[in-house]
Amino acid sequence: MSLEQPRRDTRLDRYVETYAERTHGLKVSAVRALFSVANRPEVVSLAGGMPNISDLPLDIIGSKIGELIATRGTQAMQYGSGQGEEMIREQICEVMSLEGITGHPDDVTVTTGSQQALDLVTRTFIDPGDVILAEAPSYVGALGTFASYQARVVHISMDSDGIQPEALLGAIRALRSQGRRVKFLYTIPNFNNPSGVLTSLERRHEIARICREEGVLIVEDNPYGLLSLDADPIPAIRSFDADNVVYLGSFSKTFAPGFRVGWALAPHAVREKLVIAQESATLCPPVFSQFAISTYLSNWDWKSQITVFKDMYRARRDAMLDGLEAHMPEGTTWTRPKGGFFVWVTLPEGLDSQALLPRAVTNRVAYVPGTAFYADGLGSRNMRLSYCFPTPERILEGTRRLGEVLDAELEIHSMFGIDSTPHPHDFAAGPGPDVS
Amino acid sequence: MSLEQPRRDTRLDRYVETYAERTHGLKVSAVRALFSVANRPEVVSLAGGMPNISDLPLDIIGSKIGELIATRGTQAMQYGSGQGEEMIREQICEVMSLEGITGHPDDVTVTTGSQQALDLVTRTFIDPGDVILAEAPSYVGALGTFASYQARVVHISMDSDGIQPEALLGAIRALRSQGRRVKFLYTIPNFNNPSGVLTSLERRHEIARICREEGVLIVEDNPYGLLSLDADPIPAIRSFDADNVVYLGSFSKTFAPGFRVGWALAPHAVREKLVIAQESATLCPPVFSQFAISTYLSNWDWKSQITVFKDMYRARRDAMLDGLEAHMPEGTTWTRPKGGFFVWVTLPEGLDSQALLPRAVTNRVAYVPGTAFYADGLGSRNMRLSYCFPTPERILEGTRRLGEVLDAELEIHSMFGIDSTPHPHDFAAGPGPDVS
Repeated sequence: MSLEQPRRDTRLDRYVETYAERTHGLKVSAVRALFSVANRPEVVSLAGGMPNISDLPLDIIGSKIGELIATRGTQAMQYGSGQGEEMIREQICEVMSLEGITGHPDDVTVTTGSQQALDLVTRTFIDPGDVILAEAPSYVGALGTFASYQARVVHISMDSDGIQPEALLGAIRALRSQGRRVKFLYTIPNFNNPSGVLTSLERRHEIARICREEGVLIVEDNPYGLLSLDADPIPAIRSFDADNVVYLGSFSKTFAPGFRVGWALAPHAVREKLVIAQESATLCPPVFSQFAISTYLSNWDWKSQITVFKDMYRARRDAMLDGLEAHMPEGTTWTRPKGGFFVWVTLPEGLDSQALLPRAVTNRVAYVPGTAFYADGLGSRNMRLSYCFPTPERILEGTRRLGEVLDAELEIHSMFGIDSTPHPHDFAAGPGPDVS
Repeated sequence: MSLEQPRRDTRLDRYVETYAERTHGLKVSAVRALFSVANRPEVVSLAGGMPNISDLPLDIIGSKIGELIATRGTQAMQYGSGQGEEMIREQICEVMSLEGITGHPDDVTVTTGSQQALDLVTRTFIDPGDVILAEAPSYVGALGTFASYQARVVHISMDSDGIQPEALLGAIRALRSQGRRVKFLYTIPNFNNPSGVLTSLERRHEIARICREEGVLIVEDNPYGLLSLDADPIPAIRSFDADNVVYLGSFSKTFAPGFRVGWALAPHAVREKLVIAQESATLCPPVFSQFAISTYLSNWDWKSQITVFKDMYRARRDAMLDGLEAHMPEGTTWTRPKGGFFVWVTLPEGLDSQALLPRAVTNRVAYVPGTAFYADGLGSRNMRLSYCFPTPERILEGTRRLGEVLDAELEIHSMFGIDSTPHPHDFAAGPGPDVS
């Protein structure tokens, strides 16, 4: 299974000469390629990042949204503000306050999911060839967006406390000495997708200080912050650095993704640019969705609902860690996330997660190969496992099936000799920046 | 009232050095600048393009969508396909068949309003400096999107039957002889926004032939086609030229805009690119909105609803034409649209619609100055009047107030001598392409 299309199109495409330069570089997303596989019912998918929303009070939401249409339908179904509706921007500020953020509704831009916030921020800042710094590994969907604007992504190594400050500073300086324009640091400090790593408070301060001193904007992407499973949330970087952070949030994991409502909280000058970009991209973000979410937030104890979600995800996370403990062959390591949706697995030397995927699917288990989360082709010894969607029983079964695949593969290797291609980028000693 | 920001940002913006090149050229949209004015209740706004959705059966829609959530909420509120849900893509093909189009659901990409279809098509084809051909005048929101991708728009003159074929061919050849890359023709053949012009069937065939022979793609934007007020719809260009047309449609005017559901029907190779671009931009278009619209289409006689809308808009269109007849000073001309939302007014020589706007707003009537609809600063003698949203009585009153403003202005001019700056681009003898 190849996750990428050829870089240039075939001659069957009569439009090939007319596409923009950016279009030629675009790949079919690994997420999409996996969807068709992961959706087969016999496969335990540890691949997708879909939240489990079956605990939502559907009857109540249905009746309240029905009421909304009957009473305020001509507003809720009409065009709205390019920045987003004021009522939801106020409620978004309430949500952000749970992570220590004091934001003003006027600095919030509502987006079509936080993916679109990423798109608009990238559109606003990136010229072809500009550098974006990102964790190693980082979110596949962000890497796709960055590629579509022809950015160059330079990964910064992480340890179990997050981005390594000396690696960050070294990368910025090395890149600048090469004359590269470093536009922003993209970071997911809470339960990084895909690694699950939580950036410590101390690290957050160090990262913020370095970026401030070096004049590098921080884009803080935080879809999972309120899904902290073992402790209270750590304050967002934005909470202590309002001037140098564009903060991205989402209702996709704390309520439901189908409404496609995310947001960016940005310094005022940047917010102006984001709204202009939003108007150009969609005229206005989904108005009905904003009314619907606002109705949910006003009519339901959404904080308690998040507690319900957390209890459900905690059981699944624990099932996955138990399953890995029970079924992974020796030499396999993995992260132990304190929240979010994902565990990052490092395979024994000589195994390649992308090569193994067809065998895993044949054995009815799916995951995302680690290479999807690097802009530079690394991650072949890694895989992302997600525990968000399947039940704990299915998760356990999935890890058992995965263990079988790895055991069989290791057996073949031990019979025929391990193909020990060096893999310099296993997670614990992550890659330095690509600036040599 | 200035509708544009200065091209470069002020020094108060600390990010000014880090924005992308495309960001510096972006203007605050004229539509947005007008919103705050137009929304004051004492002003008769003939400015906005908001449909009047108060005739929709809100009780029934509310109860059906409430039911949808209660019974299929976990699907409708979940992530979906980057291309859009299959059921709605099938229904979209039914809608398009009313204008003679035979399309396959697999060639449809659902978008966040048809504005996003414009954005994704532009993203797919345009490198900075590439040429887009467009009617003179053309949709302000499209011009904004084209500018955000640093396209150069060349306007092609129109008459009352649409784009003039010889002007189109002349522009393509002249531009190519200059070495410019002409990427596509952007056209709104049904009740062009802002001019209201309906492109005749004969012209559609001529335009399609020229573009096919010259290898120029057509982007056919058709939000108003089903709002043909005096006759059956004319077949879409896409209906007889499937290979060379990307067709854009929308539910915003035939149902409701707040769901933000539009689409592109594109040749297969282009569709592939659009889906990749959509995934990069939003992961997937609003899923809940798609379920909601699908529910509406399945549970209500939506074709009869469009007839209700047409009767309502016909009365408003007639009120506006009556009001203009009664109140416009001599020397004023206007189009007589057979559908859509807009009338395009050409003022007597010496009047400037942008300069007049503050006086009009003071007299409690608003419109959009014609310059918004040209990429090249023309249109100063024109204004767009919309009849979609106010009641017929308000429309009549609005034209009366507008007449007062124009009368007063003409009186001043006749007292102090007309400032007869030449305005070479009044509508009837539209501008040739800017290729001298």
